[in-house]
Amino acid sequence: MKVFVCGFGTIGQGTVEAIMKKQDFFKKRYNKEVRIVGAMDSKTYVIDQDGLDPQALLDTKKKTGKVGTDTYTKSTDVMDKLDFDVLIEVTPTNIEDGGVGLENIRYALNREIDVVTVNKGPLALKYREIMDLAKKKGCMIGFEGTVGGAMPIIDLCLDDLAGEKIKSIRGIFNGTCNYILSKMDNGQPFEQALREAQQQGYAETDPTADIEGYDSACKVVILANSVFGRNVTFDDVDITGITSINADAVGLARANGMVIRLIGEVSPTKLEVAPRLIPKGHPLSLPGTLNTAEITTEMAGPILISGRGAGRMETASAIISDLVAVLDKRFGE
Amino acid sequence: MKVFVCGFGTIGQGTVEAIMKKQDFFKKRYNKEVRIVGAMDSKTYVIDQDGLDPQALLDTKKKTGKVGTDTYTKSTDVMDKLDFDVLIEVTPTNIEDGGVGLENIRYALNREIDVVTVNKGPLALKYREIMDLAKKKGCMIGFEGTVGGAMPIIDLCLDDLAGEKIKSIRGIFNGTCNYILSKMDNGQPFEQALREAQQQGYAETDPTADIEGYDSACKVVILANSVFGRNVTFDDVDITGITSINADAVGLARANGMVIRLIGEVSPTKLEVAPRLIPKGHPLSLPGTLNTAEITTEMAGPILISGRGAGRMETASAIISDLVAVLDKRFGE
Repeated sequence: MKVFVCGFGTIGQGTVEAIMKKQDFFKKRYNKEVRIVGAMDSKTYVIDQDGLDPQALLDTKKKTGKVGTDTYTKSTDVMDKLDFDVLIEVTPTNIEDGGVGLENIRYALNREIDVVTVNKGPLALKYREIMDLAKKKGCMIGFEGTVGGAMPIIDLCLDDLAGEKIKSIRGIFNGTCNYILSKMDNGQPFEQALREAQQQGYAETDPTADIEGYDSACKVVILANSVFGRNVTFDDVDITGITSINADAVGLARANGMVIRLIGEVSPTKLEVAPRLIPKGHPLSLPGTLNTAEITTEMAGPILISGRGAGRMETASAIISDLVAVLDKRFGE
Repeated sequence: MKVFVCGFGTIGQGTVEAIMKKQDFFKKRYNKEVRIVGAMDSKTYVIDQDGLDPQALLDTKKKTGKVGTDTYTKSTDVMDKLDFDVLIEVTPTNIEDGGVGLENIRYALNREIDVVTVNKGPLALKYREIMDLAKKKGCMIGFEGTVGGAMPIIDLCLDDLAGEKIKSIRGIFNGTCNYILSKMDNGQPFEQALREAQQQGYAETDPTADIEGYDSACKVVILANSVFGRNVTFDDVDITGITSINADAVGLARANGMVIRLIGEVSPTKLEVAPRLIPKGHPLSLPGTLNTAEITTEMAGPILISGRGAGRMETASAIISDLVAVLDKRFGE
């Protein structure tokens, strides 16, 4: 099976590393090799219809800061030169208009190429259009990693709980905010907690998408569309971030046996991201950077799932799980 | 699709109720009806090749304490009279020799009938034999509900994490013990906490299987065999229950910021149930009756899953999820 890796930052590199690691598994389970025939970062690309050496890709990127030497203006022009089965779309999220990620996904589906992505922008903005196109073209589109990184909530809801009626999902969908709020539990001021999150590598230099709740909102939209069959986009989410949380609010919560957490909520009628009071001892009160979701079901009651929300190999794990689904479809088990 | 429900206690009744509730779902997703053609409790049975009225089954059981008027000596003789597709085996767990549950499962598989069960005995004692027989006969055997009731850990590990290497699973697999230990956190003596658990309906009149760790041990064996591909049985588990936990031990733990929890541990080399010290704030430290498992993976790090470990509709939910897998196999999606 031939794949094209579009985006060669942390996630793209982790994916290539994971594909390397998993060759024995692919061979054993499907008697197939997963060959990387193309890789592209924001400026350069490298292609070989016979397959690229994954380790060489990683080494080149590390040494030169670029994955290839050839440059391009339009990513789809590069893909045009190749025959491949799966697009792994891991360019950075663009929540304005979906950016190049949306173009790449549309292009691949139109060529009847399956897609695995962790790019939240296209799905938070154009979920229905993308799914309709995938269906029309008979393609799979895996997006487990868009919500909660290594927390396998999409598969859990759509497959394992297929016979259940899911009533609502409430969760912590942004590890950076949870890290900051956990630090504030212990008396740190917001600014200091944010700086610490940045020093630890949890928060970006520009932390807007995290602390304003936009990142959580993308995930809530994707859950609303995929799990609840709704037809909503980013603009439909009621969003409040954590920038107005101060020591007084945290202290007041603490005095009542509560903590403040940034909670995304989605149900057939709800679509919201906002700071909430959570009782200490509740699973959503846990400190740290994990993502956690509480899925309320009709028969099984609450089901909790938790996992790392980001990280090189963690996100690669979600991509591999979607690749496995594509391999299952194409080559059986 | 025709099913036979063997066992008509809380779980059997919940299953019949759930099948009733889900008819619209079955019709919509598969254009099929799930018909109950036989039901059996420990003494009586009722069968109708054209399908029984589920509500009438529940009413009869409630009114008379029995599901039928005809009695039987051998359950398989009753099944012999019928043509059906799926055995739902929900007789009580027998950890001595697998009991009637094991006989029923062997019988069904030999007739090439798919099996859905929450009976821990047969799988904790004869996992490999049952799986080999199922494979030979081309049958499915669903057993999601045997481990953690409504906590969908089996599907999660085998399907959603199919591309992952699972390194170990550590978890709380018995809600009764966790309830007792949570009460002891707050200073209650063991005996009083146990009595309270019995009054609340969490613990059986004979609580041995729970508090001696046997119930958790069954679940650990099933995980070892299914997730790790091991070939072990109940006798291979290193088991320590919670009966020797006293106020001193709990107090000492508390003084060090810890709680005591009954933890089942399984990995390629480990197979153990024992009380463990867990730091407060760790997901496995949470109080209450939920089952929680921490799955340590190679790439994704730790993934946590939590759900109700028992209960009428909770366990029925696991049975429905396995039935959905059978329906998917037989009739596609």
